[in-house]
Amino acid sequence: MTRTVGQVRADVEEASRWLAGRVVRTPVLRSPVIDELAGARVLLKAENLQHGGSYKMRGALRAVGRLAAAGHTGVIAQSTGNHAVAVALAARQHGLAATVVLPVDAAPTKVDRARAAGARVVFAGTGVEERVGVANGLSDESGHPVIDAYDHPDVIAGQGTASLELIEDAKRAGTPLDALVVPVGGGGGVAGACLAAAGSGIEVYGVEPVGCDSLARSLAAGVRVPVAPAPTIADGLRPSCVGELPFAIVRDTLRGVVRVDDDEIAAAFRLVLTELKVLAEPSGAAGLAGALRLPPDRDRQRTVGVVLTGGNVEAALVAQLMAPRSADVTGEGVAA
Amino acid sequence: MTRTVGQVRADVEEASRWLAGRVVRTPVLRSPVIDELAGARVLLKAENLQHGGSYKMRGALRAVGRLAAAGHTGVIAQSTGNHAVAVALAARQHGLAATVVLPVDAAPTKVDRARAAGARVVFAGTGVEERVGVANGLSDESGHPVIDAYDHPDVIAGQGTASLELIEDAKRAGTPLDALVVPVGGGGGVAGACLAAAGSGIEVYGVEPVGCDSLARSLAAGVRVPVAPAPTIADGLRPSCVGELPFAIVRDTLRGVVRVDDDEIAAAFRLVLTELKVLAEPSGAAGLAGALRLPPDRDRQRTVGVVLTGGNVEAALVAQLMAPRSADVTGEGVAA
Repeated sequence: MTRTVGQVRADVEEASRWLAGRVVRTPVLRSPVIDELAGARVLLKAENLQHGGSYKMRGALRAVGRLAAAGHTGVIAQSTGNHAVAVALAARQHGLAATVVLPVDAAPTKVDRARAAGARVVFAGTGVEERVGVANGLSDESGHPVIDAYDHPDVIAGQGTASLELIEDAKRAGTPLDALVVPVGGGGGVAGACLAAAGSGIEVYGVEPVGCDSLARSLAAGVRVPVAPAPTIADGLRPSCVGELPFAIVRDTLRGVVRVDDDEIAAAFRLVLTELKVLAEPSGAAGLAGALRLPPDRDRQRTVGVVLTGGNVEAALVAQLMAPRSADVTGEGVAA
Repeated sequence: MTRTVGQVRADVEEASRWLAGRVVRTPVLRSPVIDELAGARVLLKAENLQHGGSYKMRGALRAVGRLAAAGHTGVIAQSTGNHAVAVALAARQHGLAATVVLPVDAAPTKVDRARAAGARVVFAGTGVEERVGVANGLSDESGHPVIDAYDHPDVIAGQGTASLELIEDAKRAGTPLDALVVPVGGGGGVAGACLAAAGSGIEVYGVEPVGCDSLARSLAAGVRVPVAPAPTIADGLRPSCVGELPFAIVRDTLRGVVRVDDDEIAAAFRLVLTELKVLAEPSGAAGLAGALRLPPDRDRQRTVGVVLTGGNVEAALVAQLMAPRSADVTGEGVAA
């Protein structure tokens, strides 16, 4: 818990070696239709096929594993969903007790998954401040540490291993990445991506929903700027402020932030489902929505990597997003 | 075209070597929820992630590749969808002209995909007899051979490579298959599975929709029995009769046929989407529906392999199958 500054690529590489065999080496998917829309070769890392249904499993396992090795017998986590589920699963795997703090309006499937993993579920309000307060109180009572969803070096390194695998697999396939696009909630994943790409020349982009753009505003201001998150179907990308550690990592290394609206996220969701045949949650599909907004290179076909961060989505939302509309059911015309 | 009898496991192994690098070695997926429902360890081969969105690509590539090597300049195929699309894609890859005969009510995405692959699309009625007649007529005119969707040794061997990979990967993971479950349309896939499993002791089961059970009736009668296919959401499993070659292969080697209804297929579809995070077409999900009907072994946990044959499904059908119902949205209670 003390390695809070100076994270480097080697931290991600070390996490990757430790996680090998503990997480799924998820496949990289492609589609000619997506390539055409993007004007680029798009490689999508299917972390929706990860244990627990999201790449949050990587950071959670890494963090819980280190705490278990240090002798802790329990852990506490708060999130809108995926991180809490991942910590619950990781704790069970290491034989630790887990308490997870969820908002009262958490997606039912995420609540079910946390409980199925053996975690104690505590509900607290609808905002991150209330959850953090409850989590810290529980930590004081029990002595069990809180694993933050993004402001934690092991979580950042763990999340970064998804980007590292994508970078490696793209290189091995003879199509090394020119750019890497990652959706941004609290910034753990994009910070991990910046670490994984350090020194490679790969341009890393973050993607934020319109009105949930704390990172974009923070980069412009040079200091962290909180926002009152606007409504979006990408419920995992609504933290009110980018994390302190992630911001320290990305402020000088991130190439830029792309803002996408719900229509673009929904179109990307449909493309992922109909073209790649996998289910991404809207927060996961947001990365592809951002990649479709990058300007194509006139001189050559670039290779763009996208981390499809997760696939935990309610059945009713799938039905809503796939329901026939007046036009454009399969997502044609998505490119900006 | 003359090797029409006496197919053996070596034909599948040879096809597998030839297809290596030409098709995706698709991943094997698992879910604790599905294992629990099945009372078995269930390994699902995600052929919905195959080029062209279905395992039909394997047989089509193998058949077209051999015809190209023999000097043919064009091919003809008829099907309700996936086989035609696969032949179109395979022909383009080998530089051959493709003409595909589809029913007038073919799924629009399948028509689009065939055309996008450069095929000439000809529509003919709604039944297989009309399509076969038109395909044979076109073959007589052009001299280009017809590649049948299942009554063709290279198609059978090619489809069998999906089963062979699943058998190999399960063994490598330390969980060798006890049983293998494959949906049955014309029987090419299940015949390939029987060849791939020959001599291994693995029990192979076919799955047919209720009322589309030509194979089950044929096995009972000892001769091929056509049916008037009942309506089903599994549109790929509605041929009126099991193929001659497939029947000759499976009649003495198949352990049995499981009949499933549309509710069971729909529940399996939802399980695949929400638990495995991949999109199967109902015909593909039928394999899982059948696996959930196999009686669990009381003495030990068996390992059951399922080929998720394809993922080409209309957006509107996805919306319909995922729409909230009175209960059971996530597919609990599927097991028989």
